[in-house]
Amino acid sequence: MEAKEISQAVIGRLPRYFRYLGELKDEGVERISSQELSGLMKVTASQIRQDFNNFGGFGQQGYGYNVEYLYREIGKILGLDKQHNFVIIGAGNLGRALGNYLNFERRGFIFKGMFDANPELVGKDVRGVKVMPMEQLESFIRENDIDIAVLTIPKTSAVEVADKLVANGIRAIWNFAHVDLNVPEGIQVENVHLSDSLMKLSYNINRYNSDIK
Amino acid sequence: MEAKEISQAVIGRLPRYFRYLGELKDEGVERISSQELSGLMKVTASQIRQDFNNFGGFGQQGYGYNVEYLYREIGKILGLDKQHNFVIIGAGNLGRALGNYLNFERRGFIFKGMFDANPELVGKDVRGVKVMPMEQLESFIRENDIDIAVLTIPKTSAVEVADKLVANGIRAIWNFAHVDLNVPEGIQVENVHLSDSLMKLSYNINRYNSDIK
Repeated sequence: MEAKEISQAVIGRLPRYFRYLGELKDEGVERISSQELSGLMKVTASQIRQDFNNFGGFGQQGYGYNVEYLYREIGKILGLDKQHNFVIIGAGNLGRALGNYLNFERRGFIFKGMFDANPELVGKDVRGVKVMPMEQLESFIRENDIDIAVLTIPKTSAVEVADKLVANGIRAIWNFAHVDLNVPEGIQVENVHLSDSLMKLSYNINRYNSDIK
Repeated sequence: MEAKEISQAVIGRLPRYFRYLGELKDEGVERISSQELSGLMKVTASQIRQDFNNFGGFGQQGYGYNVEYLYREIGKILGLDKQHNFVIIGAGNLGRALGNYLNFERRGFIFKGMFDANPELVGKDVRGVKVMPMEQLESFIRENDIDIAVLTIPKTSAVEVADKLVANGIRAIWNFAHVDLNVPEGIQVENVHLSDSLMKLSYNINRYNSDIK
């Protein structure tokens, strides 16, 4: 399957397709048309067909999609048929929330280690994983086949930690620190800037209010 | 200021401008050109000028932007000059992480109440806010001028809770539940689907790997 030219916008929509298809599968639905999926997901049927055409189409015109097949194929495209080991850096509430999230494991994301600079948190247990001191981070990543580092630390230390992660072979950073990271080409970064998201909400509240005045 | 036609893409970039300008301000920088800001933020100077032109421009050609003025104006556009009261529904790790995040308060988002269906969590204290039972949610929202509800509950209960929120006058939902909410026009929803974000990262890891093989 050739997927070189696919835009991040299309990729950003794949997890949502995967989620809806998983729910349909769990409800025992076997086939679904792009029109029906369109109604559920509130995107146009033509958008759905266009998105799927990036990956060869998945279905026959007029006959609908096989839900289970489509679910599995989109899962493969998302790399969910492979195991990804991750560590969480920062054992505060957010780090612990992510460590405790069992759904990640169901998708092949395996929680392997947790690190914190605060000695009072070292040794604490998060779903069977003991919090380690930062000094052990670099060797742990090298020795435990870690793909993904989740950063739930303050922005003041995030840049330095990211550099160490990259130097020790990490391939991807899921960044919750409120700072943009500069990493070399080939290192994948996905940012979750919670404050930015809240400000966008605030904008939309105020905008709507001044529109209806 | 007229801002009716502004796309969500532009709005999505405003918090990032706000963040960079806040850092520049804290460093004592007084003026910055779109070229300098472009270098820092890794977006083109023409994108920056275009984005700002949506709001009247903020600066004089060739003279650069006044950092403090621009920071304050973008803050106003984002509604950060107003107070927004919020409640968190779901007192698990993620809810507690958000309740403990002091930065929100600095931006005018005031943490007023927390709710959970689990009786063992009711009465616990999160930064001075006591967790209340779900039965108190509706009256609390009506009586405490609550704008924003943060949903950190499982998807199975999120839809029902969202309906109750809307019926009691909530204006915005910051939704961390892994489900899309159907709300009436005028209710703002901002989704943070963490699993979707992680899957996008997984896609990019696998894509990059198969490209370099």
